[in-house]
Amino acid sequence: VKTIDDYKKHLARVADINSASGILSWDQEIYMPPGGGQFRARALSTLAGLSHEMFTDQKFGDLLERLSDDASVNGVMKKNIEKSLRDYRRWKKYPTSFVEEMSRCVSEAFQAWQKAKSENDFQIFKSPLANLIKLKREESDLLGYKEHPYDAHLDLYEPDMKLSVLKGVFEGVRKELVDFVKIIKEKPQVEDGFMRRHYPKDKQWAFGLEVLKQMGYDFNCGRQDISSHPFSLSLNPHDVRVTTRVDEEDLNNMIWSCIHEGGHALYEQGLNPENFGLPAGEAASLGIHESQSRLWENQVGRGKSFWKYFYPKLQSVFSENLGDHNLDAFYKAMNKVEPNFIRTEADELTYHFHIMIRTEVEEAIISGDLAVDDIPDYWNSKYDAYLGIKVPDNRKGVLQDIHWSHGSFGYFPTYSLGSFYAAQFYFKAAADLPNMESDFSRGDFSALLQWLRKNVHSVGRTETSEEICHRVTGEGLNFSWFMKYARGKYSEIYGL
Amino acid sequence: VKTIDDYKKHLARVADINSASGILSWDQEIYMPPGGGQFRARALSTLAGLSHEMFTDQKFGDLLERLSDDASVNGVMKKNIEKSLRDYRRWKKYPTSFVEEMSRCVSEAFQAWQKAKSENDFQIFKSPLANLIKLKREESDLLGYKEHPYDAHLDLYEPDMKLSVLKGVFEGVRKELVDFVKIIKEKPQVEDGFMRRHYPKDKQWAFGLEVLKQMGYDFNCGRQDISSHPFSLSLNPHDVRVTTRVDEEDLNNMIWSCIHEGGHALYEQGLNPENFGLPAGEAASLGIHESQSRLWENQVGRGKSFWKYFYPKLQSVFSENLGDHNLDAFYKAMNKVEPNFIRTEADELTYHFHIMIRTEVEEAIISGDLAVDDIPDYWNSKYDAYLGIKVPDNRKGVLQDIHWSHGSFGYFPTYSLGSFYAAQFYFKAAADLPNMESDFSRGDFSALLQWLRKNVHSVGRTETSEEICHRVTGEGLNFSWFMKYARGKYSEIYGL
Repeated sequence: VKTIDDYKKHLARVADINSASGILSWDQEIYMPPGGGQFRARALSTLAGLSHEMFTDQKFGDLLERLSDDASVNGVMKKNIEKSLRDYRRWKKYPTSFVEEMSRCVSEAFQAWQKAKSENDFQIFKSPLANLIKLKREESDLLGYKEHPYDAHLDLYEPDMKLSVLKGVFEGVRKELVDFVKIIKEKPQVEDGFMRRHYPKDKQWAFGLEVLKQMGYDFNCGRQDISSHPFSLSLNPHDVRVTTRVDEEDLNNMIWSCIHEGGHALYEQGLNPENFGLPAGEAASLGIHESQSRLWENQVGRGKSFWKYFYPKLQSVFSENLGDHNLDAFYKAMNKVEPNFIRTEADELTYHFHIMIRTEVEEAIISGDLAVDDIPDYWNSKYDAYLGIKVPDNRKGVLQDIHWSHGSFGYFPTYSLGSFYAAQFYFKAAADLPNMESDFSRGDFSALLQWLRKNVHSVGRTETSEEICHRVTGEGLNFSWFMKYARGKYSEIYGL
Repeated sequence: VKTIDDYKKHLARVADINSASGILSWDQEIYMPPGGGQFRARALSTLAGLSHEMFTDQKFGDLLERLSDDASVNGVMKKNIEKSLRDYRRWKKYPTSFVEEMSRCVSEAFQAWQKAKSENDFQIFKSPLANLIKLKREESDLLGYKEHPYDAHLDLYEPDMKLSVLKGVFEGVRKELVDFVKIIKEKPQVEDGFMRRHYPKDKQWAFGLEVLKQMGYDFNCGRQDISSHPFSLSLNPHDVRVTTRVDEEDLNNMIWSCIHEGGHALYEQGLNPENFGLPAGEAASLGIHESQSRLWENQVGRGKSFWKYFYPKLQSVFSENLGDHNLDAFYKAMNKVEPNFIRTEADELTYHFHIMIRTEVEEAIISGDLAVDDIPDYWNSKYDAYLGIKVPDNRKGVLQDIHWSHGSFGYFPTYSLGSFYAAQFYFKAAADLPNMESDFSRGDFSALLQWLRKNVHSVGRTETSEEICHRVTGEGLNFSWFMKYARGKYSEIYGL
C-alpha cells in the first residue's frame, strides 16, 4: 500500500506540473500580451522538461516494474500500473533535452503561425515549421514503429492506431461517403443565407452559455472564454475550461464550437477527481475524446429534438433574423452539405474529406517525401481533387489549422475516428434510452449524459478505444453506423 | 564563464517555475472557477516545493560559494552572486516540506478569507489563519533573528529592516503627522460628494487604460484585468500585469488603484530582460517597489499638474457628474483628509495610521502575545485609539486586507516606508528636472519615467533600499521629506 501511495503521489505531482503548463497555454492563447511570447516559450519548455524528468525518473520506473509484478495489485489499479508503465517506457525514449527543444520549437511555431495566418503569408511559418518537422521525424525514430514512421505519431493520440488501419477506414469513406455526397450535390440546395445575417456578439455569447448549462456543463468547475481557435482544456476535473469564437456575421461559428467544446468538457468533468494524475483519471484517447464532442455536436446538436427545445429560444433572442424561418428551415440550414475550404466550418459529411487530405499531407511530410516549400501546392491540389474547389490563398488553405503549430501531427485522423465512434455509440444509447429524443425536446439531456458517464467517461484510460467500443456496442469500430446515420438524416433533408 | 552561464541558466529555470506560479495565482484571483480551489492549492504547493528544491540544490550552493570566492568575478555580476548566496543561505533554512505546507496553508487561507470577507464572518477565517500563524512563528525560528521574531519577517520584504528601526520611523509619524492631521481636522472639510455619484463602469475602465498608457505603461508587455483586490504581477519584464477594481458609486477606487498598480508595473517593466532570474533583474525591496507606486499615486497622481492634463478629459467623459466642478474643487476632493476604516481607501496622511495599527497587531501575533480569537477586538481597539473611529464589523476591520491570507506578515510596513522613500525621491527628481511639473500638465511623464528608470529601476536588486536612497538623494531614509511634502500640499488645500 505504501508503494501504491508513492505511485499516486508521484503522478499527482506530475499532473500538477502539467496543469501549470495547461494554464500557461490557456493564457497564451487568450490573455497573454503580445510581448510575452518569448518568455512564455521559455517557461513552457522548462515545465515540459521538468514534467518529463519527473515522469521518467529511474526510481519511478523501478517502482512501476515492481508494482506490475506484484500479484496483490489488481483490478483498476493493475490497469493503471500497466498504462503508466507503457507511458514510462515511451517517455523514457525521449531525452529531456528533446522534450525541452520540442516545447521551445512549438511555442515559436505557434507564434509564427498566428502571425503567418493573420498576414496570409506562409513564408513566416515556413522556417519554424521546418524545425518542427525535423523534430517530428526524429521523434518517429526515437519512438520506433513497425510499418510506417507516421504510426509513431498516430499512437500518441490514438494508442495502437496504424496508418494501414486508418487507410482501411478511409477506404470505406471513399467508397460510400464520396458517392453519397455526389447524390446530395445533384439535389436542390437548402437555403441557409439567414444564418449569415448580423447576430450581435453579446446575445450569441449569452445563448452559448445557456446551451452549455443545459447540456450539463458545470460552470462551478469551468468557464468559457473567447479565443481565435476554440478549444477545451482540463486542468483537473474541477477546472475544465472551454473557449468559443463568435462571428457576428455567421451564427454557425459560435453554436458549433460551444456544443463541440462542451462535449469535450463534459467528458473531462465526468472523470473521477480521486483519480487525478492516474490513467483512470484521464481520457482514453483523442478518438474517444472526439467521439464525445462529435456526439454532442452532430448527433445531438444538429438533431431536430435538440432544436425543438432551443429554437424557440433562439428565435426570440434573434427575432429579426429568425422570425421568418421555422424549425424545419433552420434544421435544414444548419445541416447544409457543401464543399468548403475550412475544416472547422465544414458540414459533418464533407468534413471527412478534409481529414483525408490532412492525413495524406502528413503522411508525405513524415515520410520525408514532401519538402516544406511544396506543402501549400500539395495541399491545394488535394482540395481540387477531393472537393473540387480551388484554394484561393493559404489562410483558407494550409495555414487554417492550429495543429501543426502545436507540434501535433497524426492528430487530425482522431477527428474522423471520433465521428465514427460517436455514430456507433449514439445508436446504442438510443436503443438503451427510448425516451432520449423526447427528453431532448424538453431540454433534458441528463439521461444521455448519465449514459455517457457510466459507459464511457467513468473508465478513464483503463480501457483502450477499441475495448470501450466493444464493451459498449458489442463490436469494434464499424464505419457502417456512421453511414447509416448519414443516410437516414440526409435522405430526409435532401429528399433522396 | 562556463560557471557563470550555469548560474544564470539555473536561476532562469527557477524564475520560469516562479512565473508559472505567478500565472496560477493571477488566474486564481481573477478567472478560476470556484470549484477549482482545491486542485489549485495542490498545484501551487507542488510548484513552490519544486522552486525551493531547485534553488536550494546543494550543487547550486557549491557553485555560488565557488563564484563568490572567484576574484575574476566582479562588477554587477559580483553583486548578483552576493545576493544569490544570501538568498541561498536563507532558503536553505527552510525544509522543502515547510515550503509546500506553507503554500498549501496559504491557498486554503486565501479561499477561506474570500468567503469570510464576503460573508462578514471572522470565524470562517479563524482556523486557516491560526494554521498560518503557527507556521509563521515557526518561520521566525527557522530564519533566526537577533532582536525580535518579527524581524525575520520584515527582512523577507525589506532586507535588513528591524522592528526597532521601524518603531523609530513611526515615532516620527506619531510626533509630527498625528499633530498635523489634528490641525487639518479643525479646518472646514473639503467637499467631495460628487466623487460618489454614478460613474459607469465601462467609461471608468476606458479612462483608466488611457491614464496607464499616458504614464508609459506598455500594453504590448502587459494587460489590465478586474479583481477584488487590485495587484500588479510581473511574470517577466515583457509580461507585467495590473488589476484594478471599479466601483460605479465611487470614482476614487479605480483611479487610485490604476495609478498605484501602474507605478508598480512601470518599475517591473523597467528591469532589464537580460537579467531575467538574476538579482539584477529583480526589484530591490518591497519598500522601493512601493516607493514607485506611491510616487505615481501620490506625488504625481494626486498632484495638480497631472490633473491639469487629465481633468478636462475626465470632465468630458463624465460631464454630467463633473461639469459643475472645476479643477480646483476636484483637486481638493481627491485629497480630502478624513479618518476611515479601509486602508486602501485612506488619504495619504491617515494611511500611515492604518500601517502603524497593522504593525502593532502583527508584532503581537508573531510574538505569540495575541490569540487568534482576540485579533478582532485588538484591531478594533487600535482604530478607536489612533483614528477615533469605531469599527462597525470585521469586513470593515480585520478582514479587509488580503495580506494575511497570502501568508504575508511584515509586509504592511513597506507601504509606509515606500511612501516616505517616494517623497524623498520626488524632491530630488523635481530638483533634477525643473520642467517636470509643466511636462505633466501637457500629459508628458517621460522625463520622470526616464529619471526613475536610470536612478532606481536599472540597478534591480544589486543595491539595497538604503544604498539606492543614499546614491539618489545623498542621505538615508529621512521622514522629514514626507512631512515637508505633506505640509506644503495640505497647508494649501486646507488653508493652514
